Amino acid sequence: MWLRVSCYLMFELEVPTPFILMLRPRSGAQQWIAREEYKISPMVTVTEHTDVYGNLCQRLIGPPGNFSIRTTADVYTADLVDVNPGAPFVEIQYLPDAVLSYLLPSRYCESDHFNELAMSVTANRLPGYDQVAAIEAWIHETISYIPGNCGFPISAVEVNQRQAGVCRDLAHLGIALCRSLSIPARMVVGYLNQLQPMDLHAWFEAYVGGRWYTFDATQSGSKGGYVALGYGSDATDVAVFNQFGPLVYPLQQVVRVEQLEIDL
Amino acid sequence: MWLRVSCYLMFELEVPTPFILMLRPRSGAQQWIAREEYKISPMVTVTEHTDVYGNLCQRLIGPPGNFSIRTTADVYTADLVDVNPGAPFVEIQYLPDAVLSYLLPSRYCESDHFNELAMSVTANRLPGYDQVAAIEAWIHETISYIPGNCGFPISAVEVNQRQAGVCRDLAHLGIALCRSLSIPARMVVGYLNQLQPMDLHAWFEAYVGGRWYTFDATQSGSKGGYVALGYGSDATDVAVFNQFGPLVYPLQQVVRVEQLEIDL
Amino acid sequence: MWLRVSCYLMFELEVPTPFILMLRPRSGAQQWIAREEYKISPMVTVTEHTDVYGNLCQRLIGPPGNFSIRTTADVYTADLVDVNPGAPFVEIQYLPDAVLSYLLPSRYCESDHFNELAMSVTANRLPGYDQVAAIEAWIHETISYIPGNCGFPISAVEVNQRQAGVCRDLAHLGIALCRSLSIPARMVVGYLNQLQPMDLHAWFEAYVGGRWYTFDATQSGSKGGYVALGYGSDATDVAVFNQFGPLVYPLQQVVRVEQLEIDL
Amino acid sequence: MWLRVSCYLMFELEVPTPFILMLRPRSGAQQWIAREEYKISPMVTVTEHTDVYGNLCQRLIGPPGNFSIRTTADVYTADLVDVNPGAPFVEIQYLPDAVLSYLLPSRYCESDHFNELAMSVTANRLPGYDQVAAIEAWIHETISYIPGNCGFPISAVEVNQRQAGVCRDLAHLGIALCRSLSIPARMVVGYLNQLQPMDLHAWFEAYVGGRWYTFDATQSGSKGGYVALGYGSDATDVAVFNQFGPLVYPLQQVVRVEQLEIDL
Repeated sequence: MWLRVSCYLMFELEVPTPFILMLRPRSGAQQWIAREEYKISPMVTVTEHTDVYGNLCQRLIGPPGNFSIRTTADVYTADLVDVNPGAPFVEIQYLPDAVLSYLLPSRYCESDHFNELAMSVTANRLPGYDQVAAIEAWIHETISYIPGNCGFPISAVEVNQRQAGVCRDLAHLGIALCRSLSIPARMVVGYLNQLQPMDLHAWFEAYVGGRWYTFDATQSGSKGGYVALGYGSDATDVAVFNQFGPLVYPLQQVVRVEQLEIDL
Repeated sequence: MWLRVSCYLMFELEVPTPFILMLRPRSGAQQWIAREEYKISPMVTVTEHTDVYGNLCQRLIGPPGNFSIRTTADVYTADLVDVNPGAPFVEIQYLPDAVLSYLLPSRYCESDHFNELAMSVTANRLPGYDQVAAIEAWIHETISYIPGNCGFPISAVEVNQRQAGVCRDLAHLGIALCRSLSIPARMVVGYLNQLQPMDLHAWFEAYVGGRWYTFDATQSGSKGGYVALGYGSDATDVAVFNQFGPLVYPLQQVVRVEQLEIDL
Repeated sequence: MWLRVSCYLMFELEVPTPFILMLRPRSGAQQWIAREEYKISPMVTVTEHTDVYGNLCQRLIGPPGNFSIRTTADVYTADLVDVNPGAPFVEIQYLPDAVLSYLLPSRYCESDHFNELAMSVTANRLPGYDQVAAIEAWIHETISYIPGNCGFPISAVEVNQRQAGVCRDLAHLGIALCRSLSIPARMVVGYLNQLQPMDLHAWFEAYVGGRWYTFDATQSGSKGGYVALGYGSDATDVAVFNQFGPLVYPLQQVVRVEQLEIDL
Repeated sequence: MWLRVSCYLMFELEVPTPFILMLRPRSGAQQWIAREEYKISPMVTVTEHTDVYGNLCQRLIGPPGNFSIRTTADVYTADLVDVNPGAPFVEIQYLPDAVLSYLLPSRYCESDHFNELAMSVTANRLPGYDQVAAIEAWIHETISYIPGNCGFPISAVEVNQRQAGVCRDLAHLGIALCRSLSIPARMVVGYLNQLQPMDLHAWFEAYVGGRWYTFDATQSGSKGGYVALGYGSDATDVAVFNQFGPLVYPLQQVVRVEQLEIDL
């Protein structure tokens, strides 16, 4: 399906404020960017680089006063996410080098604390895709999903204690459980068609059967319509904006996703 | 200045034909992409990756029949290129690691054959920027510039023999002369405002005084309006399209650059 | 000074066990490897790759039974670490791209929790090197250093609660405090001459005044003799061995550092 | 088999001379480095970095006077190179991103000039491994192999004209022929057991059937004993030393390879 996604951020800055943004989606195996806009107002000098995860990052100094960023993209993405029951676990020695870092614990995914829970949640499942599907289903049933995207990220351990969290938090738990089984897992942040209420979204991917698969414990079925903005080990790496100096929140954050009727 | 640049390529393919394209400009230190479109018709699956030079490359299989690609971008770029007479030569031991490969000879820049000529062309110039400026001026005066972009690339040695070449060929000579003096130099392909006749363009950059500077032996003065599509060691690395299998030429190739009156 | 460093690890494995090791030091700006040995017994197939931090990593499957790894290196390293009081804080916008990820919180360095403490510890210090030196001194005076390297890593928050930790834990606290001031900081694991008792060691580096400087809250003065095995965001990234499957500890772990009298 | 390889280079320098060396073999899929020494005399400051091909490169300034480099390594490498008749050609669209640059022409491999010859040499062969084997055999039979490693590299076109060349030159021709058939091919420089007369050696690898295979038109059979020092597009990228400033040749260059009787 073709989606038009957009994100509008508006800040009121008291002092010149350095930002690192991750708001330019990249074309890749899962999505194709046919059109894209990135408007900064007032216009300031921006440089762009690729981080270690391959994300495009924009660096700039926001000037004092009203400062806004508006990005839009027309993206082709799959109607349904790929599912592949039975896709096997990949033994550590056969994992591609680039995937290995996604086995390690990270700031919000303390996979070193979850071995027992993961074994219990995935009991009797075939190693690989079926384990991840069991983890996704278990989170979906057990942890209350709080829509919205507010507040500081909380870690997998905390999510498990609270038995509730936003999309990002549920992803942390999914990732931690996968990694504790030696299944590489990573965080994705981006857009999701028909998310209620509409906002930026977070989900996770697991590497089984020789490739990455999409999982999202906040949704049911294999509904597609995902557009990735960034990949990383957890919420730390995929903030759509990192801002340095006195903390500021966007005065306004407006996210839109609409399905385009006509093929581009 | 704000430029709207576009490139339209139309092929008539007899068989499914693999392409690697380099038609998505990246934001960087020299330019900012505010809007961008990339239309493929008929639409096919595309994947995108970053090559070793940091260029975004699109891979696809063109289907038999008419096949076209239309890309457009709104780009902010400088009105004048930076000039810096006196910027010093950087000794090999102080060059950043990432710059070292641009010292080596390459397919079309046989820098190992040009030491004598380079010494003569830059006699009495300060090592660094002034040497490159002397090389640029010498090519501008000595080698006939043939507008247009047709034919196979020719190497620096051949350009020097023919005493004539298209933009790409003059860049090869400039690069070879710089490298023969141990000045890192690289090829850039992209758009140039007000190029006559309008087409894709090629120029070169040299690393002196701790950064890359733009040089273009086909132009005079320090007129700006450059938009880079790709960087590489020579024409080999920056083909806007590489196509595999039976050779095909675009039936149509239309390049446009217009200056936008209103700031985006 | 020239050091001969060595590490011997002996495991008793019940099942074939995948390992990722980080036991081959690299030559770099801070150290030069003149001789190096890496013995695996029994010999098995090993592959080696470079991770995103540039560390050389060895991957292998340890066979059931006794399995040992013995590495040795002769390394040139500085007698004294560089100190540079007054070296300025680097504003975010001037940091090299490759340094940015070291600003983010990580598994064991919850820098998002330390802004207040960092402000108090570095009150009245010049932004940059002097702040980091104040952090190092404060940890040295305040947190009890427990020699040895045992146990699971604990995070900066936990170290600060316990007011005690091993070298790795103190480094986590130093890193978290630096990052909370927007100073990039990273973990280093390796050898230290004359460490008491001898073991592998961990310290941290901070990026100020345009380069990385070594800090070690477990030591006093600017004594050198450091040999780095790996760099990363925290203990997660620089485990000298990561082992997958049923947990095994080395039956024996012997670390040696001796100063060589004669220049190599 | 276990090999002890060594290379001794001795220069007499008139002025301080920058060098970039590629004399530290890396462990990888094909070889394992169990011991390694790198002695520079007189000792000077060296930094080491990884180039875009993944090779470890040493940078230093050679001081005036006698200057020598002695490297040794104990390496495990296969007794026989892998052969795999029938391994299929990989269509462009399925090649890994990292392999694509090895399809392009390079300084000494003008693959754009060899399509006709390649078609004739590989007539009636299955696309893939068998084509490369036919190219290897054709060079072996047709082009005179001049042992030794002296002189400037010559390009594939020149080798084909002269019908003779050193190992490096034959590799250039093999690479150019492969690439003209859209088979990725790369240069390897290193050591070969029992080479007559002993010297550094060069051969090539081709990517077919989903991996790199070793080919060497200077040898017959599938004899192993190869130790790689560097990989690249052609001789340009894999000079074991690049030296800048007034040209100097080693006064002495001694290469040794001996088979070790006892497993390390």
